[in-house]
Amino acid sequence: MWRYHNPVAVRFGWDAVEHLSDLSARDTVLVTFPEAASNGLEFRLCALLGGKLRAVIRDVEPNPEVSWFRSRYTQFWRRHGGCTVVAVGGGSVIDTAKLMLTSTARGTFDDLFAALAAGEQPEVAEACRLVAVPTTAGTGSEVTPWATLWDRSSAAPKKYSLHVEETWPAQAIVDPSLTLSAPESVTRNSALDALSHSLESIWNVNANPVSDLYAVEAARAVIATLPGLLAAPRDRELRTTMSRASLMAGLAFSNTRTALAHSISYEMTLKHGLAHGLACSFPLPFVWKLAAGADPARDAVLARIFGAEAAEPWDRLAGFLGAVGVATRFEDYGVSAPEAEALVAYALDGARGRNFINRKIIESPAVPIPT
Amino acid sequence: MWRYHNPVAVRFGWDAVEHLSDLSARDTVLVTFPEAASNGLEFRLCALLGGKLRAVIRDVEPNPEVSWFRSRYTQFWRRHGGCTVVAVGGGSVIDTAKLMLTSTARGTFDDLFAALAAGEQPEVAEACRLVAVPTTAGTGSEVTPWATLWDRSSAAPKKYSLHVEETWPAQAIVDPSLTLSAPESVTRNSALDALSHSLESIWNVNANPVSDLYAVEAARAVIATLPGLLAAPRDRELRTTMSRASLMAGLAFSNTRTALAHSISYEMTLKHGLAHGLACSFPLPFVWKLAAGADPARDAVLARIFGAEAAEPWDRLAGFLGAVGVATRFEDYGVSAPEAEALVAYALDGARGRNFINRKIIESPAVPIPT
Repeated sequence: MWRYHNPVAVRFGWDAVEHLSDLSARDTVLVTFPEAASNGLEFRLCALLGGKLRAVIRDVEPNPEVSWFRSRYTQFWRRHGGCTVVAVGGGSVIDTAKLMLTSTARGTFDDLFAALAAGEQPEVAEACRLVAVPTTAGTGSEVTPWATLWDRSSAAPKKYSLHVEETWPAQAIVDPSLTLSAPESVTRNSALDALSHSLESIWNVNANPVSDLYAVEAARAVIATLPGLLAAPRDRELRTTMSRASLMAGLAFSNTRTALAHSISYEMTLKHGLAHGLACSFPLPFVWKLAAGADPARDAVLARIFGAEAAEPWDRLAGFLGAVGVATRFEDYGVSAPEAEALVAYALDGARGRNFINRKIIESPAVPIPT
Repeated sequence: MWRYHNPVAVRFGWDAVEHLSDLSARDTVLVTFPEAASNGLEFRLCALLGGKLRAVIRDVEPNPEVSWFRSRYTQFWRRHGGCTVVAVGGGSVIDTAKLMLTSTARGTFDDLFAALAAGEQPEVAEACRLVAVPTTAGTGSEVTPWATLWDRSSAAPKKYSLHVEETWPAQAIVDPSLTLSAPESVTRNSALDALSHSLESIWNVNANPVSDLYAVEAARAVIATLPGLLAAPRDRELRTTMSRASLMAGLAFSNTRTALAHSISYEMTLKHGLAHGLACSFPLPFVWKLAAGADPARDAVLARIFGAEAAEPWDRLAGFLGAVGVATRFEDYGVSAPEAEALVAYALDGARGRNFINRKIIESPAVPIPT
């Protein structure tokens, strides 16, 4: 028995962002990133939204943090309840918009956070409609209901995930031309995030034939395209392929969530400061090796990525990652083998770790960390 | 620039129909086919819907006809407006439900038909929620907004299509076990309908990367599975694969509509009485040959079905159709070559014919009909 549901209306194409001008909304609030003001994007977006634009929230920070929301959230709801939120940016921008547009009964962010901290999802009293426009090819957040929230204020920093019916974007406008302005590191790390979304949706207890279809297509496209794109970052066709791969990876993990590599990544980001795309992709060969043999049906889907003749596909993947400059051992990031073992054990027990198909490795005395 | 949107929540699995018992609806009306009463299905459905069931419409006929609706529609809206419609059956049942649950301002079917006859879609004043449960593997109607309506009362019998926002099912429950009771001809013709949906979504001006992904997967699965399924109709795995293929073909053509083969089929059904699945599949090799060369990108997607080494894939397809007992020439159905030429020319000019990628053949003096 499996289920698939993705209600987001997708529009994809070079310069698709121009369609913001035919948005049926009456009042809109633009949520974007600070650099959009300096590179001309914000000006263009304001012109497209025209008289429908009520406000711009432009001070979004990478990896949305609880403290950032408190005052902004109350103010947003007092002034802009009922508007349509147009989020234009990377994953952090779209996630910030999802957190902002979901209102609790009292309209305070503390209530929303209290629910997440208690391991629950908040009761939503009201919500704004979301139009998500990614400017990176990787997040997939434009077609998922997931929003990641970080809390670094407490003694034990933690990552939370908001996902309610209301955080599904109504519309995703995927315009590969918007990714042209990304620096090389962002292009690479975003693509690796998409690769991780696709693989993580396959070695996942929630995998299904629809998510598999998207995931295999996405993984193959990222692997085939990324080296060429890093060499020719202005190439329109490669940018288009990468945006499509990222979208399809999003369509895959929108129904499965992520798994062990992402669970590992949260610790690597919190404790070792790794950028998300790097943190969730360097462990992929290691996690693939752990997944292998746990379920022949999953092995068969994974085999479609490099073809059935690739005997040890995780080595092929490590080779690909090395070629785009990603070291794949924990020690490359200053994490010793014993530390990595503890980290993986902790990650296996996290919410996303529990989506990983190979539950038996938890019982093994120690997970072998490659050195 | 392309778009994809399919808001239907899909639940798939053997015995998934049991989930009708947890439907959140308060009042439901069951729409089903007469034989469901005699084979025990209706009894089972009534038990599952329990106290939520208000009425059963069980006299649905194949190929829904305008005259059937007139009195039933008004009565339905007077008694059951606001309910959830649970449609359990083949394409005709699900299409009938879609036509029934869409109310015009005055609540008369004549208003709805008048709009369709004028080449428009009706203004919807009110609509019921639809839960679609296919009992055949082929229609795809459970994940599309399309409802076919026939009018044989006038001098020139015609086929109409209703499709409004409200005719998207809210939920599709795809349970392969329900297809076990289908006779051999229904199993075959339904599968061929799914094959036609998938191919027609590829040689289609509305094709896009998402519909292509579903279509190739579906076409390959039907071709790989149907001969075995006809030999072993009780096989659970083959039934499951075929239901999944039909679902995926539905997800493909839900965003493209069909094309020339379906346009041809409407004439073959109206004038020569062919069952839908047969009518829309026997011309597939012919239409594939017409499509070939019109667009290299489309050729490349089509080549994924039999593999790039198959030089004349339409011959491979004709071989497959022959093996499951489908003759592929017009004359096999009593249609002479000149008559077929006129029919194809007429079909090319129909709404679905205009979705076909090779528009140039209209300008050719005569379309070569294979004999």
